[in-house]
Amino acid sequence: MTKELVFGHQNPDTDTIASAMAFAYYQNQLGYEAEAVALGEPNDETKFALNQFGLKPLRVIETAANEVESVMLVDHNEPQQSVSDLDQVSVSHVVDHHRINGFNTAAPLYMQLRPFGSVSTILTEMFQAKNINIPAEIAGMLLSGLISDTLLLKSPTTTDHDREALPYLAKLAGVDADKYGLEMLKAGTNLAAKSDEQIVDGDAKTFELGGTKVRIGQVNTVDLNDVFDRQADLETKMNELSATNGYDTFLLVATNILDSDSELLFVGANADKVEAAFDAKLNDQHRMALPGVVSRKKQVVPPLTAAFEG
Amino acid sequence: MTKELVFGHQNPDTDTIASAMAFAYYQNQLGYEAEAVALGEPNDETKFALNQFGLKPLRVIETAANEVESVMLVDHNEPQQSVSDLDQVSVSHVVDHHRINGFNTAAPLYMQLRPFGSVSTILTEMFQAKNINIPAEIAGMLLSGLISDTLLLKSPTTTDHDREALPYLAKLAGVDADKYGLEMLKAGTNLAAKSDEQIVDGDAKTFELGGTKVRIGQVNTVDLNDVFDRQADLETKMNELSATNGYDTFLLVATNILDSDSELLFVGANADKVEAAFDAKLNDQHRMALPGVVSRKKQVVPPLTAAFEG
Repeated sequence: MTKELVFGHQNPDTDTIASAMAFAYYQNQLGYEAEAVALGEPNDETKFALNQFGLKPLRVIETAANEVESVMLVDHNEPQQSVSDLDQVSVSHVVDHHRINGFNTAAPLYMQLRPFGSVSTILTEMFQAKNINIPAEIAGMLLSGLISDTLLLKSPTTTDHDREALPYLAKLAGVDADKYGLEMLKAGTNLAAKSDEQIVDGDAKTFELGGTKVRIGQVNTVDLNDVFDRQADLETKMNELSATNGYDTFLLVATNILDSDSELLFVGANADKVEAAFDAKLNDQHRMALPGVVSRKKQVVPPLTAAFEG
Repeated sequence: MTKELVFGHQNPDTDTIASAMAFAYYQNQLGYEAEAVALGEPNDETKFALNQFGLKPLRVIETAANEVESVMLVDHNEPQQSVSDLDQVSVSHVVDHHRINGFNTAAPLYMQLRPFGSVSTILTEMFQAKNINIPAEIAGMLLSGLISDTLLLKSPTTTDHDREALPYLAKLAGVDADKYGLEMLKAGTNLAAKSDEQIVDGDAKTFELGGTKVRIGQVNTVDLNDVFDRQADLETKMNELSATNGYDTFLLVATNILDSDSELLFVGANADKVEAAFDAKLNDQHRMALPGVVSRKKQVVPPLTAAFEG
């Protein structure tokens, strides 16, 4: 068994970084050589979590095939969200909580997919099933990933599995989940310190929907005005990125983590399909209120998929 | 939670039938309403197993959307091997040991994939992990599926997980694994009683390789002459099925289960790619010896994929 790399998606968020760290540790405990790496620098929220638990950022890689023959994916499976040379390596393991899209392999593999709120929760149950102890700093990162992806259990993606894992991880990590969680989420919402590109593209993912390329960014905030006071500049950046990367549609979902509502900003083509997806009209500022929407995966991508591919 | 159907692939083999039965039972024990069904009548080997353990064949369905909104797949994920209206239902669960190919979903789901010799083995470990007792007749079917897919642990797909599951299941089922296993395998090789179509297509699967449709059948025997004495008729049937169904290439892998060797029969286009795949020439009878080859999944599909898509 030769060494493998373990990594999450591009534009890494806290759940992706935590999952890579924890799954590499898990594989190490089972006797396999695995190194957690990242496809980008940690965001402010993840930096807060790493700092809290005394960990350094993961090494950032651009390509995998120059280092290893085989990789393990966490928190993603869509090739366009992965390392650029994924087709040059084989994928031996996937641990994920997203839909399957465009992911094909030449050989059988290990896949552990659950429709849970975070991959951190799936991994927590995997450690429990094999009776492997979770060190405090790994538990702290898994707790952070779980809090980040479920917005402290408020997202509709939250399951009973997540609700059970949260206090279990908080105890192992030695922190108060609610207090620490709100601090961590707020650390990720300091928009004044973020560039326009970081806001629109920092957490963005590309989706191939009905033959078109749809880019969907999401930004968390405690005040939607912090986003839309900069709307003109953000739209300019979205148009610029679309031109450079060939996106047909660019959507930014601005989510207020305190009241769990979102507002959508639209740029590009297919306005009719976006309106059909959410059964609402874009206003003359190219925006649409999405009350109660906080989950891109569960509340944004599925209706868009239906509208673009239906 | 409304009722879901649980089924394996078209042209069901023993592992697919056993997996559907066992996973439906497993879901029932967890409190969910699930019914095991089949996409075709059981083959002779599966009939032998059902008879041994006092079970009736599963109900055969043609479509799923007329009965349920959601289904659970076992032992397959490629849509062309599944129910014809798979795109009309959502897939909530997959338990499988094949590569991922062309399988996409609109939403996150439960997937338990392992590169083990049989899905029966994966399910055995799932019962163990949840401490759910396996009734004797379900254990007998899982044992049969495991023996069938691994040719009594002789196939190169066999893993330590399969080797551990076999005696465990045999004890629960109350049979001698080697004695019962050889009888069951032989029951599936009574070629005299099989039509040409049953031989070439009874266990066949379609693979989309590099834009072409490749049909690959496999037949087990205790004497390769029982197959090739009928070669002219088999080729006629393969050509006929290719014309009707648009297969570009049709391969029949005849496997001697006693000495673990195979002989390939070729019909259609792309002879050069088939020869490249196995680094050998087809003889003037359109045949090629494949010494040591018994596994379509591990020893036939991967080299063909490389040759057709490389």
